Amino acid sequence: MRKVIHGGDIYQYPAEIIDFSSNINPLGIPHSVKKILQGNWEHLLRYPDIDYRALRQNIAAYHLIGEEQVLVGNGAAEIIFLLGNFFRGKKILIPVPAFGEYAEAVKLGGGEVVTLKRDVADFALPLEEIRMLLKQVDGIILCNPNNPTGQILREPELREIVELTYTLGKYLILDEAFIDFVPEPEKSSGLKWLKHHSQLIIIRAYTKYYALPGLRLGYGLGDERVLADLRRYQMPWSVNSLAVEIGKVVLKDREYQQLSREWIGRERNFLQTHLQEMVGLRIFPTEANFFLIKLENGQIARELKQRMIEKGVLIRDASSFVGLDDSYFRVAIKERTDNLRLINALTEALQEYKAE
Amino acid sequence: MRKVIHGGDIYQYPAEIIDFSSNINPLGIPHSVKKILQGNWEHLLRYPDIDYRALRQNIAAYHLIGEEQVLVGNGAAEIIFLLGNFFRGKKILIPVPAFGEYAEAVKLGGGEVVTLKRDVADFALPLEEIRMLLKQVDGIILCNPNNPTGQILREPELREIVELTYTLGKYLILDEAFIDFVPEPEKSSGLKWLKHHSQLIIIRAYTKYYALPGLRLGYGLGDERVLADLRRYQMPWSVNSLAVEIGKVVLKDREYQQLSREWIGRERNFLQTHLQEMVGLRIFPTEANFFLIKLENGQIARELKQRMIEKGVLIRDASSFVGLDDSYFRVAIKERTDNLRLINALTEALQEYKAE
Repeated sequence: MRKVIHGGDIYQYPAEIIDFSSNINPLGIPHSVKKILQGNWEHLLRYPDIDYRALRQNIAAYHLIGEEQVLVGNGAAEIIFLLGNFFRGKKILIPVPAFGEYAEAVKLGGGEVVTLKRDVADFALPLEEIRMLLKQVDGIILCNPNNPTGQILREPELREIVELTYTLGKYLILDEAFIDFVPEPEKSSGLKWLKHHSQLIIIRAYTKYYALPGLRLGYGLGDERVLADLRRYQMPWSVNSLAVEIGKVVLKDREYQQLSREWIGRERNFLQTHLQEMVGLRIFPTEANFFLIKLENGQIARELKQRMIEKGVLIRDASSFVGLDDSYFRVAIKERTDNLRLINALTEALQEYKAE
Repeated sequence: MRKVIHGGDIYQYPAEIIDFSSNINPLGIPHSVKKILQGNWEHLLRYPDIDYRALRQNIAAYHLIGEEQVLVGNGAAEIIFLLGNFFRGKKILIPVPAFGEYAEAVKLGGGEVVTLKRDVADFALPLEEIRMLLKQVDGIILCNPNNPTGQILREPELREIVELTYTLGKYLILDEAFIDFVPEPEKSSGLKWLKHHSQLIIIRAYTKYYALPGLRLGYGLGDERVLADLRRYQMPWSVNSLAVEIGKVVLKDREYQQLSREWIGRERNFLQTHLQEMVGLRIFPTEANFFLIKLENGQIARELKQRMIEKGVLIRDASSFVGLDDSYFRVAIKERTDNLRLINALTEALQEYKAE
């Protein structure tokens, strides 16, 4: 029934399949979360605080901002949906390929999407065109690091976009759902401009980094008045009580954050080295926890996906992303044993193609 | 920031307060739910099934309908919100007093609310006026049993509304969030007409009856095409994985259902008998798990609420419901020891008024 296709729809595949299609931290549920879950269920008996005061205070303290600058949501997905409603009647620029829910949310809310294609050579952000197009729209949505391409917008480029939108009085949405996986998140985050740019909204998720996609928790950061406008479109109690309790503690879990940093640095390099050795694949450099890959010899990703499923590995056919053709797929970075299984399965598949 | 005021906002009161302001089954978390929660957290590591196939199958089997007639949501609140979007540009009749989110959702979605006041003498549904007004609107929203008044729409009346909306081709929304507390739910439910009336939508919640307001799970039942239209406005993964797992088992928990039936029959009678003995209160007959009460001697509910808080009891000042003045309050039915504390605190408060 839904229009946007996502990774992670493992419910139609055998239970043993290794899921490389959704980009979740493979270290699993943080220890701090398990402590919360341990028989501590009394909060399910109560409605969540309808204003999420305690949770917002914790998030604000983590980012050193005011709690009135925090809006919590049912995953980053709800913040995106609220933005869609907020942008009713507005024109929003979306460089693609990008997460499909941006365009869906804007259209559903009654806004107009202006699509700008990144150059498939390297998927760099077309700054010149953005500079021109920004004058004709009300805002722009950027994902940093970008899903599905994986590359990061570095500070000079980011600063230019921030200044440009500030000067022109346009909305700048920075979806930072994957930024915790980046080597130096604080350098690439828009957080430092939050105080000065009242039309800047940053989206964050607990989903990916803390391996809790089933919990449904994300948040938006921005100007108090803009967030109040967004909240007008929010249903009551959209965030469940368990998410509230977990959300309060997990940002302080330094051990999990340290282990994640070690894992991602190690496995990103490992996978990149091995993927680049394979003939027939083009690997795009990534600072996120996934790789976008292009099949260079005319094979199509949908077909490769079927082949890989037979080998027990689920990849993300990326052809449903606007701006990509049917030669692209995406794989998450997982733990070493799984990454080896991905490499083996891919190697096998590519050899099969050669033999055919 | 939100406009609708709800019960259950206990976060601003001392932890020891007994909450009579939200209408939750006091038997607590069902045993079947505790078994699910017991260390069984792997589902948090996965996105929920974006189509909720297994959960919808379970709900469909429980009601003996097709799974395509089930739409799951983040509490009944999400179904109401989706209806609000679905009714964009439409006129919707809402007899009041009623749950405040109906009007809020319709207005927010861009529809027009036509309010019809029930007679405060007994809050009976004004069938004559509904018959006339229905011709000028696109649909009607009814809560059965009604929140906050507690009375049930019996089969002859309900049948008349069903036939009327069917004949005129109007939407009929029946919110049955509290129907499991009614002595004979199946007699008062609109379920039996679901197959024949394609514009009938029934809303159900897990929140109240299974004491899981923190979990966020509810659903809508209706015609496949209407539900598909509603779903267009739904954000992805609005129901969390834990809710999915719990939702699958709890409808089969016959033991909890039996215990709940015994408790509600016993305590509704007990509370009613004692409340009716109090001078200065008017008790409205209820088939739900709460009582609407009117202060008859000029006291105002807001003031009584403060007095009761000092006695460790939180009641629901009902004056925020459109159609009620400031003399009404609502109390949930709880376990015997709590009900006795409510009676004692109320008796004390009424004596204080007399002495003043």
